[in-house]
Amino acid sequence: MTLQQDVAEATTLELDRHVFHSWSAQGALKPLVIAGGSGAEVWDEEGTRLLDFSSQLVNTNIGHTHPKVVAAIQEQAAILPTVAPAHANRTRGLAAERILAVAGEPFSKVFFTNGGADANENAIRLARLATGRDKVLSAYRSYHGNTGAAIVATGDWRRVPNEYSRGHVHFWGPFPYRSEFWSATPEQEAERALRALERIIEAEGPGSIAALLVETVPGTAGVIVPPPGWLAGLRAICDRWGIVLIFDEVMAGFGRTGDWFAFQNPTLNPDGIVPDVITFAKGVNSGYVPAGGVIIPPALAAEFDTRVFPGGLTYSGHPLAMASIVATIDAMREEGIVENARRIGADVLGPALRTLAERHPVIGEVRGLGVFWALDLVEDPATRAPLPAAETARLKAQLVAAGLLPFVQDNRIHVVPPCIVTDEQVARAIAIYDAVLP
Amino acid sequence: MTLQQDVAEATTLELDRHVFHSWSAQGALKPLVIAGGSGAEVWDEEGTRLLDFSSQLVNTNIGHTHPKVVAAIQEQAAILPTVAPAHANRTRGLAAERILAVAGEPFSKVFFTNGGADANENAIRLARLATGRDKVLSAYRSYHGNTGAAIVATGDWRRVPNEYSRGHVHFWGPFPYRSEFWSATPEQEAERALRALERIIEAEGPGSIAALLVETVPGTAGVIVPPPGWLAGLRAICDRWGIVLIFDEVMAGFGRTGDWFAFQNPTLNPDGIVPDVITFAKGVNSGYVPAGGVIIPPALAAEFDTRVFPGGLTYSGHPLAMASIVATIDAMREEGIVENARRIGADVLGPALRTLAERHPVIGEVRGLGVFWALDLVEDPATRAPLPAAETARLKAQLVAAGLLPFVQDNRIHVVPPCIVTDEQVARAIAIYDAVLP
Repeated sequence: MTLQQDVAEATTLELDRHVFHSWSAQGALKPLVIAGGSGAEVWDEEGTRLLDFSSQLVNTNIGHTHPKVVAAIQEQAAILPTVAPAHANRTRGLAAERILAVAGEPFSKVFFTNGGADANENAIRLARLATGRDKVLSAYRSYHGNTGAAIVATGDWRRVPNEYSRGHVHFWGPFPYRSEFWSATPEQEAERALRALERIIEAEGPGSIAALLVETVPGTAGVIVPPPGWLAGLRAICDRWGIVLIFDEVMAGFGRTGDWFAFQNPTLNPDGIVPDVITFAKGVNSGYVPAGGVIIPPALAAEFDTRVFPGGLTYSGHPLAMASIVATIDAMREEGIVENARRIGADVLGPALRTLAERHPVIGEVRGLGVFWALDLVEDPATRAPLPAAETARLKAQLVAAGLLPFVQDNRIHVVPPCIVTDEQVARAIAIYDAVLP
Repeated sequence: MTLQQDVAEATTLELDRHVFHSWSAQGALKPLVIAGGSGAEVWDEEGTRLLDFSSQLVNTNIGHTHPKVVAAIQEQAAILPTVAPAHANRTRGLAAERILAVAGEPFSKVFFTNGGADANENAIRLARLATGRDKVLSAYRSYHGNTGAAIVATGDWRRVPNEYSRGHVHFWGPFPYRSEFWSATPEQEAERALRALERIIEAEGPGSIAALLVETVPGTAGVIVPPPGWLAGLRAICDRWGIVLIFDEVMAGFGRTGDWFAFQNPTLNPDGIVPDVITFAKGVNSGYVPAGGVIIPPALAAEFDTRVFPGGLTYSGHPLAMASIVATIDAMREEGIVENARRIGADVLGPALRTLAERHPVIGEVRGLGVFWALDLVEDPATRAPLPAAETARLKAQLVAAGLLPFVQDNRIHVVPPCIVTDEQVARAIAIYDAVLP
């Protein structure tokens, strides 16, 4: 269609040709039309329903159109949708208070952004300015966002065509199922990954490293649950060298792992270590309004008591986004949504996926916790060779045809329903995976 | 206050201590509380009203809580606030169609972001990938956003503490009132600025330069209306060397200058030249929901027909943001809001500010068009020495006390009301400036 045609007559897919899509070649797009949603379901314009086991981009933790969050957005829109960050606004203060309450000690301040990428940008900025150092260490299997510093902190292929920043150094994190360290056990994997990281720090010069930025549970890279000892080891390394430890909880935070933040999970973090900075987005308001941010402890905030923090953005602490954060956190608390994610993971989804793996040799490994799982698909369980892309794409199409919206990445299906998913919805989804997987 | 205290009893300023503020030393903050707004007015929690001649951060072009935009947000929130960018959604297609309709030929696609910074990030990414070159040229007197590449493209002091990216080269743009080129007339200023820019390109190597990124009318730097010949000269330089010309219309776009885009203004751009890429945010939806984007012509889009565009973000083409864009552009058309901005600038605000300058020698120059003006305040009209910061801060406090929310930057007052401002509101504001200015 052209702009001259009557827009009202254009189909959604015709209108979509005006849209330049992310991470894609524009000529080969066949997008699914999504018109509406509620809870764990979405539907197209004909009303065909899909069980949303993608949570879109793993962000709708509270499900679609949660009535309390919708009402808060509707109310705030009529009062004051936007205000400059320099002014004070009660909704913003309440959102910061809610976030600090779930983050716990010692955090004292929140810097708000529009999403996860600029949250990481500002966490990196804080670390560089506080330490006076340049380099940022991050893992090869990671994704930290699409802006200048965040995309270069990213470790996957999306970094390479965007590598225009200085001072980023990458390392291999632990991944017991696909180790880079020839290790035999998860404990050994953590030990060797820490040793390898220490060697890189020694070689780069510890005094040149501002920050170590890691996803607490690397998400897009494959829901790689860190083995015992890894997080405590990172904390010890950063303490030794005065490096700012940033946990990127953009995907893992706000209920996804069955805790408010993944680092609060006693299995992942038995030593109870705490990062210096936390970044968040997605689950904080399920993405109903673009928002993210940086959670900062007093010591780091104090660096900027008399010195100007040289970062900011027009929509920092945007009242509409803030209202959706307050309502989301309140609803998650009142309705026990984080607890539901934990119970579903431990008692329902985790066991069901493990049973599925026993029935389908294409599933090389099941990894995860809460509502944050990956099925690592393989050609051959013995070699663990990844399932070819064409085969994974075929499975994706079959899952959609069977009524489930999946999250497919490389050779993996990420099983990432909203935190409000019910036992019955999990059973339905498992039946669909069971029917489609070879 | 602490988190243990009852939050309900905390004042907004107490709650605001949980917020880490942008571009500030955190110890010295004395924010104004803003609780609500309507049209060109905002109010605090006691109901004290201020005439908003800041448009917050020069973004509420349509005024506060415009009923049609509020209704569109309320409606979309209940249908589907968020969807992954890979899927198609009708509201997103309609928003792209609306933007392309006002951008005009030859633009064919829109890439949506969360704001102006990531719009510029993605415009730079497009240019670098399409040309295979690295360097980005931008002006010293500019602001392009706070993320990794955008902040280094920025030319003001905010760049310096953030300079961690490669490949950014800065030049002086034209500024007749404060020339870097010893020029006597605006025409000479444009001619000399172009010559200086050409010399930098020759010295840097034209074949190494991917993009030339400029604000069509530099905004935060002082509403520096470009002299005749400048824009056409930029177009000619970029054509000669195969450099992608990006106009940052984040602040100038969507009515601010009295046209949909500043480059469409026949006085600014008598030759009717067109950039290769336009970036936008702010006015596109008055910031009611965080949104921005990149407007792309067919030739550049085609570069990514078979090749993957390596950029993206979770909230690209976010339905709630898209609904607010559709409603904003429709309301601006139906209500003649862009035309109002043009008329106010030409017939009401411009003449009134010039008269004000005659009465107050502290105003060294009045610059602007539409609802986009700067009063350049000077200690001495002969030397044009900027008014000292303490004096400007005092004026700012007096303007607030007199009932006007001003936009003050360096030694300037930017007179930037919403595009819906009325003759009566302009008269009230002028009376306040008149009473407060020495």
